[in-house]
Order: sequence, then structure tokens, then C-alpha cells
Amino acid sequence: MELNTNRYVPPELRVAEVPQGLGDDYYMRLALQMAEAAVGQTEINPNVGCVVVKEGRIVGLGAHLQRGMAHAEVHALNMAGEQARDATVYVTLEPCSHHGRTPPCADRLIRERVARVVVAATDPNPQVAGRGIARLREHGIAVTTGVLEHEARRLIEPFAKYMSTGRPYVTLKTASTLDGKIASATGDSKWITGESARAFVHTLRHRHHAIMAGIGTVLEDDPQLNTRLPVPGLHPVRIIVDSQLRLPPSSRVVQDRSARTVVLASDQAPAEKQAELERLGVEVLRCGEGPRVDLAKAMDALGRMEIGSILLEGGGRLNGSMLEQQLIDYIYLFFAPKLIGGNGPGSFDFSGFARMHDAIRLEQLTCTAFGTDFCISGKPIYGNL
Amino acid sequence: MELNTNRYVPPELRVAEVPQGLGDDYYMRLALQMAEAAVGQTEINPNVGCVVVKEGRIVGLGAHLQRGMAHAEVHALNMAGEQARDATVYVTLEPCSHHGRTPPCADRLIRERVARVVVAATDPNPQVAGRGIARLREHGIAVTTGVLEHEARRLIEPFAKYMSTGRPYVTLKTASTLDGKIASATGDSKWITGESARAFVHTLRHRHHAIMAGIGTVLEDDPQLNTRLPVPGLHPVRIIVDSQLRLPPSSRVVQDRSARTVVLASDQAPAEKQAELERLGVEVLRCGEGPRVDLAKAMDALGRMEIGSILLEGGGRLNGSMLEQQLIDYIYLFFAPKLIGGNGPGSFDFSGFARMHDAIRLEQLTCTAFGTDFCISGKPIYGNL
Repeated sequence: MELNTNRYVPPELRVAEVPQGLGDDYYMRLALQMAEAAVGQTEINPNVGCVVVKEGRIVGLGAHLQRGMAHAEVHALNMAGEQARDATVYVTLEPCSHHGRTPPCADRLIRERVARVVVAATDPNPQVAGRGIARLREHGIAVTTGVLEHEARRLIEPFAKYMSTGRPYVTLKTASTLDGKIASATGDSKWITGESARAFVHTLRHRHHAIMAGIGTVLEDDPQLNTRLPVPGLHPVRIIVDSQLRLPPSSRVVQDRSARTVVLASDQAPAEKQAELERLGVEVLRCGEGPRVDLAKAMDALGRMEIGSILLEGGGRLNGSMLEQQLIDYIYLFFAPKLIGGNGPGSFDFSGFARMHDAIRLEQLTCTAFGTDFCISGKPIYGNL
Repeated sequence: MELNTNRYVPPELRVAEVPQGLGDDYYMRLALQMAEAAVGQTEINPNVGCVVVKEGRIVGLGAHLQRGMAHAEVHALNMAGEQARDATVYVTLEPCSHHGRTPPCADRLIRERVARVVVAATDPNPQVAGRGIARLREHGIAVTTGVLEHEARRLIEPFAKYMSTGRPYVTLKTASTLDGKIASATGDSKWITGESARAFVHTLRHRHHAIMAGIGTVLEDDPQLNTRLPVPGLHPVRIIVDSQLRLPPSSRVVQDRSARTVVLASDQAPAEKQAELERLGVEVLRCGEGPRVDLAKAMDALGRMEIGSILLEGGGRLNGSMLEQQLIDYIYLFFAPKLIGGNGPGSFDFSGFARMHDAIRLEQLTCTAFGTDFCISGKPIYGNL
């Protein structure tokens, strides 16, 4: 009874991409791949890659690897040494023209006397966009823009959001049955997805600056909320939404010290509990005067703490509240091929929309297979809220 | 933030299948394709395809096209004419050796003096399986079995189920948001999926002997429950589950006469309402002594009416009851990339399982894209019920 035209390709069958011809795209893709691989290790800084090419040969490679350390161009130019002269430099983000923690990269490119610079995306800050490029051109360097721009813009979305709003970029991850349940009616949720999907979640943790969960999850599962992978990963900052400061001092996120733990509480939570948690090294952030944490204010506060991105692994209520307040920027929905029935909770508990037409749509969809599980990911579009 | 290895292939990018070498598979695949294309037009009979090959050239093609008419082998041998002698015959199902509505195909093959017969699947009825093959061999015809057997078995699953249980093969189709809702809390469900997915549902209707819906759907939407496609399609028998015979005589499924309409009612439904509906040409089937239709008994009754396959397009309660009673053989779950929230109904309303481990699993999964919607399909495995 099958009539599939656009078939899902099972893992056994890899799709060969169209072979790539040598050209600006070829080197820019390599620069993007290096930038992409370093996602999760630059805090609020953008992920940027750079390739230096001289007379048909790659002579320098670089990526921004850590906040406060060298930009991608600097690493690549250092590798190229004297070969940088008259070379072509591919860089995924417009070179900076201002003094930050490091000197401006535009000046370094001018000093090295490169011949040409190819840029994927201009600076997402409209107030400085184009300045680096203009500076290069003023010094006689040829500049090409817009090569793989779409891919480069997607890569720096968290940076662009943080720059423009002061808030962290929030990625939600949830896992449900095909009938949309994250647990049975009696609360059993171990396990919904298989090992392959669960392992990927640890990669997602590594690739975010912080991880966020609700106090309900902590009370129920006492999770570690850190990164466990076959190779060492970075442990994100742990953020617990805990309006009334019910977090037990004996819980693993307080005791194990594998990462910073930040607790979001409302102004109504008991001061003595805050003092107790702080003595144990936990940071407590008050956000909201009501009985519950004001999540929008919390995002502002976390932004002021220079948290650039958050992986949200909430229960249905926290996910629903975050979605309703348009605080989620990207969504990974894992589905296990199961039907459990009953009245168990769903992934998003919020009041919802009366009309199907008004539902929040996901765009830029990707479907990824993990064994017999699969993941639908995309950007929520809040046009109708 | 993407790290996809096993990517979904967007419609823009077609996956080229591995080029097929000439061999038994090559001709058997063609036979299967013809058989597959005729799904929906053979009632309780199996879909079968046949290819006759002589000296490196296809000389006959056939498929079983309508119950009571020629079998696939007969069509193909008729086309081949005298070239059938010493030819190789590829047939997706073991040739019959008994007199049914038509004479046995094994005898016809013997009479034509073909040299070799290649069979994909043996007869699903264990009491006659192998008899046709044995009969051919007794007459000196070489027989090869098991070529593309798995594909051939899937194709005749409805026939095999009907033969072994006397019940129709039930395919469920449902469409929900990513958070598993088939309507908003206020009942709005127009539309969940886009045009491409909705058009495919009409193809599914054409490919089933009957379509089944609950009285709730009829009262709410007054649907036609027939097949509307860019080319003429077959209209399935319409089955309405209507325990108390609430079906309005003015409804379209009663009035439009585009197809037979069968209403399933409980013994408690009023006799005068049955008489009224019957005067209008509706068939009423009583199944179950309680206040609600006994769905298992209904499947037996529909089987006795020689309904071979049913497309179930129920609401959450009918779907849930059918699933709970293990009456569903195959499932198509369409998902629209939307999140609607609220307390709207889900695709399967049943009491469910306490443990995630006991959930009904889907196997032999396929994921198919329909514009920005997608469809997960597979066979439910009831091992844990």
C-alpha cells in the first residue's frame, strides 16, 4: 500500500551530495565547516571560519575557538605567514573594524597586503555592517560578498539575537511518542527514544552555553544536566527554573560541581533558602514579583550574565510557557515510533489557539533519523500570536 | 546548530536508486509495479502482476485487474500468444492450482509449454501453498521461488489477512499538529495539513475497498467520503460507525448515491430509524448488544460482506477503540509542522499504557514528505497488549 515519491532515506543509504567544483563556494564551505565544528565553545561570540588561499593552494586555516582569544582571520593569517601577501582570504563573517578584546581584523588584513577578501555574511549589527568591508576596499583590497550567505547567517543566529536583543538564543529539545506524549498517564518516561537520539542530546548540550530545566524535572529525576559523550565535552551552565526555591541542597546539580548552577526564583521565594543554596556555590537570580518566575525577565537577566545560548529541556509546562512568550528560537522534536494513549503530558502545555490557522508554524524544517526514532527540527514562526 | 548525518532528502533532491542490472529481479520488479498500481480495484482478491520473457525480450505483460476477471498470468500469456512456448514467466504470487471463478493458472502455464516460472511469494494460505509450484514441476517446468519475496508479501498482506481471519485489512489515516492535536480546543481542524497531503488521502481512498468514519465526523462535517482526484477514481464503500443510528437522512452520505453506504449500529438502536435509512438505500448492520457497536464483531460482519480492506478516517475515540482492540493493520500519521497547544483532541483516545515500555510500536517505518508536511507510516506491533 505504499506510494512514496519523496522517500525518507534510511541510514543504510547515504545521499551523495553533488560533487563540488573548485571556486569561491568550495573554500567558503570549508570555512563554514570549521566554524560549525566550534559551536558551543565561543560563549557569546560568533562562530567564524577562515581559509587563506594562494596560487591554488590552501595556505592558512582558522576558526574562532574561544572568547577573548584570536579571531578566525588571525589564526589563518598566522598559519599563512609570508604567503598571506597577495592571497585570497575567505571568511564567513565580515572582518571587524573596531577594537574589542583583540585589535581589528580589517587592519591586520590590510597590513598583510592580501589581494582579495571573500565574505559570506556582513556583520549582523546594522550599525557597523559594511564598515569592515569598506575599510578593506579603501586600502585597495578587492572584496566579494554574499558567498554562501544563507548558511553563514544561520550559523551566527545566536550571536545576532544576543547582539540585537541582549537575550540568549533558546533551542528547545523534547521527545515524545507519535501521539505526542512525553510520559504515560502514570508518569513513566524511561525511555521514549533510543540510545542514538539520547546520545545526540549530549552533543546538543555541548553546543550550548547553558542548559535549562524546571524544578519538577530536578525533583523527579535528580539529573546531572551535564555532557556525557565518548570524548570529553563542555559542560553547559545549569539553569533551574524554581520559583519557590524548592531545590534540595542534596541534589546532584548542587552537589556535583561539574558545572555552574544558576537558579531562577521569584521575589516571593524564601531568603533563607537562597542563602543556603549560595553557601553551596549555587547562584540565585530573582526574576519576577509574582509567585512564578517571569521568564522574559529571566532571559534579560541571563543575557546580562553573558549567557549566549540555552538548550531548554523542560517539561510540558515550562516548554509551553516559553513558547507562549515567544522565547524559543529553534526546536528539536524527537519522535519515537510508539503510541501510548492515555492522559499523559504532552511536550507543550499552554492555553493554545482556537483556530488551526493561528497555530505556531515551524519553518526551515529538517527531518533526521536516529535508529528507528526521528527528529523534526525547525524555527517557530510567531506571526499569529 | 545542525549536525545531521542521515538527512531527510527534500523534494527538490530526488534520490537516484541504484541502477538495476538485468536479471530475475528486473522483471519481477516490473511485475510488482503493475500489481501495485492496481491496488484498490480487485476487492478481496490479491494484487498480482506477471511478465513473460522470451529470448531477452518482454513478450507479455499482465496484472489481475478486477475480481472475477482474468488472473495476471492469463492476461500476460494472452498477450504473448505463441511466443509463450519455452518462455520464462515472472509472477508475483504462486499460480493457482484450483478452479475458482476462473480455471487454474498452473494448468494454463503447462498447456502453453513455458520453460520456466519465477515466483515471488507462495500462496499465503498454508493449506494450498506450494501446490501450484509442485504441479508445474511435475510437468517439467523449472520453478524459481523467493525472488523479491518480501515486497510481494507486503503487497498481498490485505489478501492474506482476509483469507486467514475473514476480516478486512484496516489502514488508519490521521493528521495532527506536531503536538499531536487533530483539532484546536474549540474544535477547529480546517486545515491541519496542506493540499499535497490531503490529495494523497484521496489516492488512499481509491486504493481501499471501503472507508470508515464515526457518526461524530458525519454530524460535524457532513463529508462525502468519496474519492476526488484529477482523474476519475473508485469510490469506496462508506462505513459509518453509528451505534444509536443518529445519521440524518439529509446527510450527503445518504443522499449523494456516489457509493454504497453501510451503517454499523448496536442492537439497541431504534428499528424505525433503520427502516427509514433502508428506504433511502442505506444498508444497516447490527453488531453488538450493548449501547455501542462491537467493533470486532463489526469487522467479522464486514468480512462476510466481502469487504477486503478499509481506510479508517476516524476521530480520536474511534481510532483509539480500533487500536486498543488490535483491529488496525497499518497506520499513516500525517504531521503538519505546527504547534497549537490547548486541550484539543489527539489522534488516539484510549486508556493507554502505564509503562512507556508497553507502548504500541510501529515497525517497517517510512517517512514521506508532502510539501512541508510529512507522513510517518508503519505497522503497529501489538506484542504487549
